[in-house]
Amino acid sequence: MDGERILVALGGNAMTAPDGSATPQAQALAVEAAMQRVAELVARGAEVALTHGNGPQVGNILIKQQLSAHVVPPVPLDWCVAQTQATIGVLIANALERALVARGMERPVSTVVTRTLVDPADRGFTDPAKPIGRYFPAAEALRFAALGQSWRDFGERGWRRVVASPEPLEILDAKAVDALMAAGHIVVAAGGGGVPMIRVDGVLRGVEAVIDKDLAGQLLARHIGATILAIATDIDHVMIGYGTASQRPLGRMTPGELRAYAAAGHFAGGSMGPKVEAAVRFVEAGGRRAVITSLEHIADGAGTIVEKE
Amino acid sequence: MDGERILVALGGNAMTAPDGSATPQAQALAVEAAMQRVAELVARGAEVALTHGNGPQVGNILIKQQLSAHVVPPVPLDWCVAQTQATIGVLIANALERALVARGMERPVSTVVTRTLVDPADRGFTDPAKPIGRYFPAAEALRFAALGQSWRDFGERGWRRVVASPEPLEILDAKAVDALMAAGHIVVAAGGGGVPMIRVDGVLRGVEAVIDKDLAGQLLARHIGATILAIATDIDHVMIGYGTASQRPLGRMTPGELRAYAAAGHFAGGSMGPKVEAAVRFVEAGGRRAVITSLEHIADGAGTIVEKE
Repeated sequence: MDGERILVALGGNAMTAPDGSATPQAQALAVEAAMQRVAELVARGAEVALTHGNGPQVGNILIKQQLSAHVVPPVPLDWCVAQTQATIGVLIANALERALVARGMERPVSTVVTRTLVDPADRGFTDPAKPIGRYFPAAEALRFAALGQSWRDFGERGWRRVVASPEPLEILDAKAVDALMAAGHIVVAAGGGGVPMIRVDGVLRGVEAVIDKDLAGQLLARHIGATILAIATDIDHVMIGYGTASQRPLGRMTPGELRAYAAAGHFAGGSMGPKVEAAVRFVEAGGRRAVITSLEHIADGAGTIVEKE
Repeated sequence: MDGERILVALGGNAMTAPDGSATPQAQALAVEAAMQRVAELVARGAEVALTHGNGPQVGNILIKQQLSAHVVPPVPLDWCVAQTQATIGVLIANALERALVARGMERPVSTVVTRTLVDPADRGFTDPAKPIGRYFPAAEALRFAALGQSWRDFGERGWRRVVASPEPLEILDAKAVDALMAAGHIVVAAGGGGVPMIRVDGVLRGVEAVIDKDLAGQLLARHIGATILAIATDIDHVMIGYGTASQRPLGRMTPGELRAYAAAGHFAGGSMGPKVEAAVRFVEAGGRRAVITSLEHIADGAGTIVEKE
């Protein structure tokens, strides 16, 4: 693994308590545990960059904004994403630097605030479908909807805000990640998929959206010439027939084989779809290997492995 | 100015409307105007790093937290500082990259989430004196005080939270700034003085405090080998006898001359004290020149200039 560049994408479970709690203390403890695994990767000689999800964290910020909007003007959703990049980045940097020192390695861990370019014509903007934040009663939801937000009725559980989740086109700060890695830094970047930006008449500006962190992660991995994309999730393998009698874990796969399972609808529900899509895209675009596995196995070669041959 | 490294410290007026408003729109407009001046510096061949204040922004976040604390657990003050580094960093990066493109220069502007080490024995922690956030009625203030926060009665205007403003000892992410500048990036770092960290038994962790951004800025400037520290504020010169009949602007000064004015109490009220202290420290520590002036004059050599000879 010596000198090999690996982009590790951490799921929400790496940053929240097992019960999903995202208090500051729960986040810190979860990150500390996760960084033990990442430190193993570094100890094996990998050059590591990290990206991470931010769903619960953005959810908390949105609630704070909703409950204070009569006093303080809320900041747009892209700002909320930026905010979570910084708080999670600091937690990761502290915990990973410490885990490395405990292994006799002194390596700087740096967080780059990362902007991701999306297409203003992405269909996500005309048909926002990604639910974010908590469920709210209809009356409150409709009040926010009147201000221009999209909210959707999810039945008994209540209403939830839905936003665009556009395709990431370019990780605009990838060069900073590359320069820092070249200087020996471990880098945290593109958290929450990156701060979404559109370019209109040559002017870059933030846009209210959230970008899938695995799709952004595979793009960042390609920009920085990573050979391996490692997607950490809460199960050891991608499963087909999940939840049925014929449920089966997937081991080594070609991109074509995995695409076929995806086309057959095996990953449609839940959050595995974008992870599979990210892994396949990375290898199709020339990446040597994508791995989807649990955080526990991120350094040991287990999991669902996607390779061309 | 070719190849000369300059650390520019931007005051709050570079990021808020003239009336102090810190709505997202007001922040974006103010930053856009400020970046025209910074772009001039870059056009003259300077290698620029930027730091910035964040008072109104942290104030807004604290209010959101106070009004939602019954639903979402508030995050600690150091996390709030981190959040403002990211949002302001994105605004600066977008605006400065654009201002440079308009001048025919394509330069990446990158934001590093920056941690600053402070001493857990700093007297600020036993006697917190830095007011942050808005004024609150006594009843609300005392409710937060009961949770362990320090609040102080400011008379007719109400109560305000006071926190430690410890001395910055080390900008922990300065190496990242250095590596990015070496790779040709303009870097935004140590916003709001940096995310305050203490090290206890070898373990780094965040602490509830705010660090003066000019004192942190002069330290960052020294860490990255900047030759010039430029502190942008809302007046063209440091003044002595400010507000009196004998009011007089200061031009070229030695550190000793400026220290003597400080010792005589000329900068005690208001926010000029830390700026003067930062400028003096930078030059005493070997920096070639410190400048305190308005943003308008940041690129033209006007202002109060501190140099050894």
